[in-house]
Amino acid sequence: MDLRECAKIINAEFDDGNFEVTKMNTLKDATSSEVSFVANAKYVKDIQDSKAGAIIVHKDMREYVPSTAVALVVENPYWEMATLSKYFAPPIEDASLSEPKIGEGSVVSPKAEIARGAVVGKNCTIMAHVYVGANAVVGDNTILYPSVTIYRDCKVGSDCIIHANTTIGSDGFGFATNKLGEHRKIYQNGNVVVEDNVEIGSSSTVDRAAFGSTLIKHGVRIDNLVQVGHNCIIGEHSVLVAQAGISGSTTMGRNVVMGGQSATAGHLSIAPFTTMAARSGVTKSIQESGLTFAGFPLMEHRLWLKLQGKIARLIK
Amino acid sequence: MDLRECAKIINAEFDDGNFEVTKMNTLKDATSSEVSFVANAKYVKDIQDSKAGAIIVHKDMREYVPSTAVALVVENPYWEMATLSKYFAPPIEDASLSEPKIGEGSVVSPKAEIARGAVVGKNCTIMAHVYVGANAVVGDNTILYPSVTIYRDCKVGSDCIIHANTTIGSDGFGFATNKLGEHRKIYQNGNVVVEDNVEIGSSSTVDRAAFGSTLIKHGVRIDNLVQVGHNCIIGEHSVLVAQAGISGSTTMGRNVVMGGQSATAGHLSIAPFTTMAARSGVTKSIQESGLTFAGFPLMEHRLWLKLQGKIARLIK
Amino acid sequence: MDLRECAKIINAEFDDGNFEVTKMNTLKDATSSEVSFVANAKYVKDIQDSKAGAIIVHKDMREYVPSTAVALVVENPYWEMATLSKYFAPPIEDASLSEPKIGEGSVVSPKAEIARGAVVGKNCTIMAHVYVGANAVVGDNTILYPSVTIYRDCKVGSDCIIHANTTIGSDGFGFATNKLGEHRKIYQNGNVVVEDNVEIGSSSTVDRAAFGSTLIKHGVRIDNLVQVGHNCIIGEHSVLVAQAGISGSTTMGRNVVMGGQSATAGHLSIAPFTTMAARSGVTKSIQESGLTFAGFPLMEHRLWLKLQGKIARLIK
Repeated sequence: MDLRECAKIINAEFDDGNFEVTKMNTLKDATSSEVSFVANAKYVKDIQDSKAGAIIVHKDMREYVPSTAVALVVENPYWEMATLSKYFAPPIEDASLSEPKIGEGSVVSPKAEIARGAVVGKNCTIMAHVYVGANAVVGDNTILYPSVTIYRDCKVGSDCIIHANTTIGSDGFGFATNKLGEHRKIYQNGNVVVEDNVEIGSSSTVDRAAFGSTLIKHGVRIDNLVQVGHNCIIGEHSVLVAQAGISGSTTMGRNVVMGGQSATAGHLSIAPFTTMAARSGVTKSIQESGLTFAGFPLMEHRLWLKLQGKIARLIK
Repeated sequence: MDLRECAKIINAEFDDGNFEVTKMNTLKDATSSEVSFVANAKYVKDIQDSKAGAIIVHKDMREYVPSTAVALVVENPYWEMATLSKYFAPPIEDASLSEPKIGEGSVVSPKAEIARGAVVGKNCTIMAHVYVGANAVVGDNTILYPSVTIYRDCKVGSDCIIHANTTIGSDGFGFATNKLGEHRKIYQNGNVVVEDNVEIGSSSTVDRAAFGSTLIKHGVRIDNLVQVGHNCIIGEHSVLVAQAGISGSTTMGRNVVMGGQSATAGHLSIAPFTTMAARSGVTKSIQESGLTFAGFPLMEHRLWLKLQGKIARLIK
Repeated sequence: MDLRECAKIINAEFDDGNFEVTKMNTLKDATSSEVSFVANAKYVKDIQDSKAGAIIVHKDMREYVPSTAVALVVENPYWEMATLSKYFAPPIEDASLSEPKIGEGSVVSPKAEIARGAVVGKNCTIMAHVYVGANAVVGDNTILYPSVTIYRDCKVGSDCIIHANTTIGSDGFGFATNKLGEHRKIYQNGNVVVEDNVEIGSSSTVDRAAFGSTLIKHGVRIDNLVQVGHNCIIGEHSVLVAQAGISGSTTMGRNVVMGGQSATAGHLSIAPFTTMAARSGVTKSIQESGLTFAGFPLMEHRLWLKLQGKIARLIK
């Protein structure tokens, strides 16, 4: 699809310039063949620095669009980004892709489904009712237990174990909302990358990125019923205990421990070797490594213990 | 089954009158061919107004049964309602139903199972390992990702997307308990209705109603690992963020937002355009529209922020 | 595998004595053909009383190993226990086992998978996309809804109902961590036993034991999205409401009620007839029967109500 078509779909004012658009992307990551967008005045700096070929903007922001980018001027850029995202969504399955490739020594249940374009490595165990989507890649020696679903384009590394009924790569929870309170889906055209030697429990969910990748780094341990939102980066050897919920775009350093039923707000970064006690609710980024936190609102664990003492006295 | 048989099964005192019983229902919704029950003295008014053909009651409540209804007198009406509910449960699958109907343009994986009596609309994508139960209905253009399970009699609208490993229509959590602490299942003979343009994430669960329907209205957005209990009504364009838990018989107006890991107690109603912050715990109905709440116990968000300040000072 | 081979795998100092090792087990439960381990100085008493044939220990603990056991001396006993556990893990499926046996009157969907060595009782309903693993046993009259996964060696009793997308017997969340922060899997070579007349909701997860069994006693009711960790014992007729999280090695008496989103820390015991309100967080064992608790930290419900009053006044 070329830029003129894009502009037409979202009914954008559009001065000049045209090119074949390869995909949509964030201001930071977009290249000269990609379309980006700006939804919020606080991203002025990012507009100016963007290498995007075109940027969807409100007319008030047009002046910040660098000369290397075409401005697509619309009333509601976030909504129109959602509108346009649909046109860049690949088909769920694609008959034109080649037959899936299964590596030597791998055992694939006849009741599993490996979509066209997928590649499964050597010595894997792919059990009944597993689904591996189009162009998905699974490394060597990996075990996928029954009813694991890997969506298209996602990658699971070598020496991984994913337990039953877990989903890798379902759509991140993204939508634009208009003044009438109606929602429009932002197609999640990124993927999930699970590195090597990762174990994920049963009925956990790892959402695919809107743009780019949700990343689970090597050695991570994820328990059951854990939610990992789109565009998260979970650092090496981090541990997410059962029912933890990691909101979108959270970035963790290595060896972070998130206790059971703990959660983070979105767009935070958590320093390496941080430990969050069970039920912790993280609403601000953690800069300093190696500390232990608890509570919601979050505080250092030793303060939390002190607070509990005060509360106990309050009751008496 | 006729009323005499019903009375015999639950060993009820039974004066006179007989009719073919079509189903069981609540006092409010039951019609003259249906059997209802009263488990609690506070429902006296509902008994008097009921149009049920028969009502299971304790002898102390018999006097309130209107002349249009037959009284089935038992020691423990709630327990006996549970006993009888089993006899009105349809079979899980039914060979006597007609072949499932699949609309034009729909792609159904050979590894999906569409039960007899089910109807799938046009241009749907029904992926591997999906199950669509007896008499279930799926509208047009709807996508069911792998391992989605739709139980019998449930309806999913048009333009819906349901992500992997999600369950629509599993039994609500209903049982009666006797003095020995033993539980007896209340068969959940209602269904779930999901209206048009709804998206539901992965590994979420929407329970079928005990009587009537659990209702997800059009435009709703449900994230991953969300629980919706039996007989809930989720208003148009409402948003349930990951790991939220909505207890049975909660009614929400339109555009309610339930933050991540938030929850409601049962039998509440929440006004339109209410926003609940992450981790909110709702224990009372919300009458006024458009407010934002937080905390458990719940308070207005601005009070909650103030409280956090006080608590912070308490620590020092 | 004999003890010499075990010692070689973990590079243990090893004086004398050899025997065919049947499995690994805890200090308390190990017999003379089994290898155990001690990871923590507080278990001195358990070492002295152990009937294990061999015990993996640090050199500082060697003196406590009874004369009936061979000491396998290593630098990091917990890590080496993890190393060795892998060698006692049975294969996921096993072609040498006999054809699965299906009892009279049971209906098994052709789209279900029953592994070799499994036994399904009479009059069961095993729906599409169910997986019943090697040597697993299902009693009579039990219903397994679509995409239920029962891992190998697990037992589900008679008259049980397990709803869609639920997992019984996935690996408990067990691993050892070394000084570099790397994790090594402790293979979970135990199983899950679900007794008779148990109902489990959709997308719940019950983990298999590291050693021995995770036990769900008869009459238990488990709602949707509930996590039961490895080696838990859930007492008869107990009720676990949606999104509750029961950490590993929790032992509950009969008729315990865990409210929605409640949780326990690990290794606790909870007295019979205890009720935990929604969101309760249990961090200490409960000795006295029949009480009602709430809050996190946990307190008696009446105190919690009082505390909420105090907090309300704090805001004003």
